[in-house]
Amino acid sequence: MISIDRPSRTADLGDVRVANRAAVLRHVRLHAPCSRADVAARTGLNKATVSSLVGELVEHGLLRETGLTENRVGRPATMLVLDGSRYVGLGLRIGADELVVVAVDVAGERVLTWRRAFAAATAGPDETVAALAALARRAINRVTGTGRTVLGLTVGVPGPVDADGVVPAAPALGWRGVPLAAALRRALRDPGFPIGVDTDANLAVSAELRHGPYAGTADLVHLTGGPTAGVVSGGRLLRGGRGFAGEIGHLPVLPDGPACGCGRRGCLAALVGVDAVVRRLLPDALQDGPVTDHLPEIERIQALARAGNDPVRTGLTEVGRQLGRAVCVLVDLLDPEVVVLGGHLAALAPWLLPAVRAELADRTLAPPPVVRVEASTLGSEASALGGATAALATVEAGHLPAA
Amino acid sequence: MISIDRPSRTADLGDVRVANRAAVLRHVRLHAPCSRADVAARTGLNKATVSSLVGELVEHGLLRETGLTENRVGRPATMLVLDGSRYVGLGLRIGADELVVVAVDVAGERVLTWRRAFAAATAGPDETVAALAALARRAINRVTGTGRTVLGLTVGVPGPVDADGVVPAAPALGWRGVPLAAALRRALRDPGFPIGVDTDANLAVSAELRHGPYAGTADLVHLTGGPTAGVVSGGRLLRGGRGFAGEIGHLPVLPDGPACGCGRRGCLAALVGVDAVVRRLLPDALQDGPVTDHLPEIERIQALARAGNDPVRTGLTEVGRQLGRAVCVLVDLLDPEVVVLGGHLAALAPWLLPAVRAELADRTLAPPPVVRVEASTLGSEASALGGATAALATVEAGHLPAA
Repeated sequence: MISIDRPSRTADLGDVRVANRAAVLRHVRLHAPCSRADVAARTGLNKATVSSLVGELVEHGLLRETGLTENRVGRPATMLVLDGSRYVGLGLRIGADELVVVAVDVAGERVLTWRRAFAAATAGPDETVAALAALARRAINRVTGTGRTVLGLTVGVPGPVDADGVVPAAPALGWRGVPLAAALRRALRDPGFPIGVDTDANLAVSAELRHGPYAGTADLVHLTGGPTAGVVSGGRLLRGGRGFAGEIGHLPVLPDGPACGCGRRGCLAALVGVDAVVRRLLPDALQDGPVTDHLPEIERIQALARAGNDPVRTGLTEVGRQLGRAVCVLVDLLDPEVVVLGGHLAALAPWLLPAVRAELADRTLAPPPVVRVEASTLGSEASALGGATAALATVEAGHLPAA
Repeated sequence: MISIDRPSRTADLGDVRVANRAAVLRHVRLHAPCSRADVAARTGLNKATVSSLVGELVEHGLLRETGLTENRVGRPATMLVLDGSRYVGLGLRIGADELVVVAVDVAGERVLTWRRAFAAATAGPDETVAALAALARRAINRVTGTGRTVLGLTVGVPGPVDADGVVPAAPALGWRGVPLAAALRRALRDPGFPIGVDTDANLAVSAELRHGPYAGTADLVHLTGGPTAGVVSGGRLLRGGRGFAGEIGHLPVLPDGPACGCGRRGCLAALVGVDAVVRRLLPDALQDGPVTDHLPEIERIQALARAGNDPVRTGLTEVGRQLGRAVCVLVDLLDPEVVVLGGHLAALAPWLLPAVRAELADRTLAPPPVVRVEASTLGSEASALGGATAALATVEAGHLPAA
């Protein structure tokens, strides 16, 4: 894909062969099985170039041949597919009450998904890095034990991340200025592959873009009720100038609403964040102090809503209306095709969505057809899945694995 | 520029030669004067390809040679620059009280800027199209009279525009469902070049991106107090799924604020739009009915503010604070490097900016360094200038002019 309107400071075409290799891989990913001639016809590359690039990609275990097909005009052609047998990307997620690791191969298949209960907020950064590294090592051992090579690892955190993999502030974890990428690289003793860190909203929306039912949607927003929305616009992740785009948690929604951790009132996060929802709908949940493990509480809310409990249903409708106001702002500004609700918002979607959609119908000014708002189907490992996919990005960009 | 993370439905590499031609043009635009060898070294293209592409571009009058330089190692090289002598793009703007046309050549130089007083809102679509066409014809005659060829024309309108050049709703003009591109093409009797229509916010931010003091800034927002913000993110115009991104005019800012045309209260446009500002600061301006020509009223406000008039200064500070709240939302969501104020907001910037910046310092959560907020220096023809630039986009994308 050539972007023509980017007046980039590094605007040169760069390595044409790398770009062409990426184009071949992308074509096979989207259209497999396909022949070399198909690839040449659709990419505009000449057949000799395609043959040479495919040869390299087969040799490096990124593509494989699947025998002949005769189901075409002319002589039978050898068909190509992505080869998942040799390389994987790893994605980790630091959730409020669990760590997750996912491995995905180059063909997009999930190789493993493991979870470990862990309260990162109470453990602090050092212990969290140690626990993440232990989980990553186990996953690396499993993956390499089956003869595969890890190409990269990306960790999702609930907060912004700078270009050096430092987390300047993640209130959900109580972190400030944690150099996560460097610490994890040390803990894994320089494993020889890139270690990245990204905001989990960015990774979650990347997972939706590749793996969910809305895969390939060019304009997509992912909301969890956390501080950040993941935004894909024109097929690209919206990152902003410093990588801090998507901050939505402190959008003013209700002028006289409940106090927010930021010192103001009625911010989105103070209304629809997981803490806020548990506090509003299950006042007794706080009797024994702050809730650290939210899953059982969200399940209680689901059970009460299913049983027709009036205060819970009314409360969920209110939460949905307030969430809807933020969705209206996002829709006006970003004009997405789909808004995907993840995290506890996905778990509560059956009761939230009607109110969100009603608010949208009442207030959005964008001409119809109105945007779709849907629950994510990827579960709480969405950002780990997105991290594993992100870890394969350099290969997908046309760079050959060193291995 | 190859974008690697776009899982586009038309993801194939397409015509490699066109992309390479665009890379050569872009390189010369950013680095002129430069030699063929410089271009080859920086684009990764081989010298034979560069020579062949440069030959074509010189032949078509897009590049020209400027003699030799000896100021380098090795033998003297012929230096290349963009050639502005043969082709121009035209940009038109439908303002509330004027029509503007700007012509820009391929080298980025402005060839003409003409204005005509015209009240589009009272004239209606048919008369506006006729007046636009008359202005465009005069500009085309002038440009072709100097031996240049017009490559395209783009009109900016104060409202969203669909992919067919239809304006679904532009409240500032009282338009609904106006097929502007088709009507203008008819009025100009199929002039043989593409006619485009875009939201003027998109064209204004494109002009800033290319011509203003923030040219080249990859993350840029342009606000005029009108319904739409122009947003550039990662160097690309943010368009959204249907092309309706950037709608900001009805962002809720002040819960009990003044009534807005949309039926709600306290929307951004009802607080900082040009009508709203004139109404608030010059209550007597409405004695003789609605204001159609805002420029004299904005000049009166400037004069009063300069003279230290207390109510006007206090009012401008309030407007600035309210504008600042919207800027906070934009900064949180989009993380721009610069927010540029255009239109009447630029004219009133000396009195608005301190309040906008104070609000931002109070409320934005993004880690420092905080975003810059500045007044545009491009004047009211910004969107026409952006339209002229947009009209050259196919050439800049590497397509040769048919002429």
